[in-house]
Amino acid sequence: MTLNELASRSGEWLRGVGPESDIVISTRIRLARNLADFPFIRCCKTADRAAIEQTMRQRVLTRDAFKHLTYLDVVELSSVDRQFLVERQLISRELAEAEGARGVAIDPKERFSIMVSEEDHFRVQVMHSGLALQETWAQVDCIDDEIEAAVSYAFHEQLGYLTACPTNVGTGMRVSVMLHLPALVMTRQIDKVFRSLQKISLAVRGLYGEGSQATGDFYQISNQITLGRTEQELIEQVGEVVPAIIDYERRAREFLLKESPNDLHDRVSRAHGILSTAQTISSEETMHLLSSVRMGVNLGLLDIDIAMLNKLFIHTQPAHLQKISGGELDTADRNIERATYLQSHLRSEPSDGENN
Amino acid sequence: MTLNELASRSGEWLRGVGPESDIVISTRIRLARNLADFPFIRCCKTADRAAIEQTMRQRVLTRDAFKHLTYLDVVELSSVDRQFLVERQLISRELAEAEGARGVAIDPKERFSIMVSEEDHFRVQVMHSGLALQETWAQVDCIDDEIEAAVSYAFHEQLGYLTACPTNVGTGMRVSVMLHLPALVMTRQIDKVFRSLQKISLAVRGLYGEGSQATGDFYQISNQITLGRTEQELIEQVGEVVPAIIDYERRAREFLLKESPNDLHDRVSRAHGILSTAQTISSEETMHLLSSVRMGVNLGLLDIDIAMLNKLFIHTQPAHLQKISGGELDTADRNIERATYLQSHLRSEPSDGENN
Repeated sequence: MTLNELASRSGEWLRGVGPESDIVISTRIRLARNLADFPFIRCCKTADRAAIEQTMRQRVLTRDAFKHLTYLDVVELSSVDRQFLVERQLISRELAEAEGARGVAIDPKERFSIMVSEEDHFRVQVMHSGLALQETWAQVDCIDDEIEAAVSYAFHEQLGYLTACPTNVGTGMRVSVMLHLPALVMTRQIDKVFRSLQKISLAVRGLYGEGSQATGDFYQISNQITLGRTEQELIEQVGEVVPAIIDYERRAREFLLKESPNDLHDRVSRAHGILSTAQTISSEETMHLLSSVRMGVNLGLLDIDIAMLNKLFIHTQPAHLQKISGGELDTADRNIERATYLQSHLRSEPSDGENN
Repeated sequence: MTLNELASRSGEWLRGVGPESDIVISTRIRLARNLADFPFIRCCKTADRAAIEQTMRQRVLTRDAFKHLTYLDVVELSSVDRQFLVERQLISRELAEAEGARGVAIDPKERFSIMVSEEDHFRVQVMHSGLALQETWAQVDCIDDEIEAAVSYAFHEQLGYLTACPTNVGTGMRVSVMLHLPALVMTRQIDKVFRSLQKISLAVRGLYGEGSQATGDFYQISNQITLGRTEQELIEQVGEVVPAIIDYERRAREFLLKESPNDLHDRVSRAHGILSTAQTISSEETMHLLSSVRMGVNLGLLDIDIAMLNKLFIHTQPAHLQKISGGELDTADRNIERATYLQSHLRSEPSDGENN
């Protein structure tokens, strides 16, 4: 599998299926793991980092369960390719921007990836479409067991898994659910929801993780605590809160549909019109308009394939456009390429929900 | 001919043909005329006004040249119908809002109309598509002769035609050319052009006459002086200035096409996208967007019938929408009706200039 092949399709987690997939884009669980035989990454010498990578390649990826993975040496990737993997959510921004030997093993269907020498030696992440906490946990747990059969993890009987950053010690687990919450943003209730989440130690971040803006009205809800609870307890906490947020979003949509149906339909329909006709468009405006269109589809106001829309959020990002067009593009050229890409995907689609 | 029949089609002057019709919408000449036997309107008693109307109906409209005209008693019209005739440029706002016996005779193809008891006893106006000063003058002169064969005009050997307002004394003529000048507006040169026109005593007004805003980037250029010059001299002055303005507008369009082709194409294409997809839209936004689309068609960026576009400027006005929908509508309902009307006309059209 090459990166160009990846660029021409989209991951399983963007299929727009699974429970609550009108609001829940994806469920992701990542585990931070370190090898017992090496210092943490920030203390590693060059030889240590090379040895950690060798461990992954020769002892882990040679196992039957992992033979189908593609291993990418991040050092050798161009900056566009690194950015592409970040946009695809297959590696973190930190891994893309770090220095020294590092890599990532990718499942061709993008159901999971294993980063090597990010903040920790290994970071395993599994992604599912829709709200699928138990399935995601079962899969990441299974992958974790497979890796542990080949290597010795740094583990402390009382503390649990040892990690480079104290905030990850214990389970080393982060459970993230990506939600699409346009109606809570439109009705200005989103801040209230987030303040409640922070009180119960859940973090809220944008589409691209810590520090990223919530473009496209996407929000990732995740646990902040990893120590002193079991994995099941952490999953249950997120699993209890997310349905409440989904319910708030549904009620906000119903409110908008009831109170100002024309304005809502107008907003959704114009967003589709602009995306289908713009000749140059920024990433920010694209995300903003796609968000309205996505909500419109889920409310039956437009008839567009939701998996294709999910894909557009990712494929209109800067590095994706450059992979698709096959060359480096400056901002102005990207804005034109983005408009062309959007037109080719949206103009051929039926769009009027009433024609259903 | 009924007003409903009028509402379902558009006038000859909107056909978008004739010289310079990419920039010149129409040429209009109106003559202010008064009958020798009656005082000016503002001094008329009820019986005088009734007699003036009788003169029009029994002595003028009975002539062979005028038998095809429809005479409308403005007093009996509903306020929507009056507004409809104003939007259609067949009567002035003043005639619509005046009190007392008054009317208008309309050519079914809307090539000319004769208002009765506006500011003067008769106001004759002829409208042509494109820049057609001599043809328009020849026609209005001919109509004037026909009327004068039946009645005696108030005429002074030295001053010329006598009118209620001193600014119209002399020829009683106003020559107006309606121009579409979006590129001069976009490049902020329009004010400079207008200051030059005012220096040579030409007036600039919006689509709907004195005091109306220049919505849709439409501007009417007309003479202010009517006294001490012949009709030919007045026509020649306008005829010399208009080509210079057309030239400025063409250069401004070329400048935009050369300096920022993507931004221009984007503006035009998005305007078409919004007009085709909005579910509710104000008259002001409609005019603004239609103006961009109209320029785009003339620059080959979009492929839409120009006569249909010209019609949309008029048919999306408030009274037209109410005539078309067959009932009174408040602002919110008009905005929805307007959006529906625009969609039905723009969605079926091919739109991408590149497919020509």
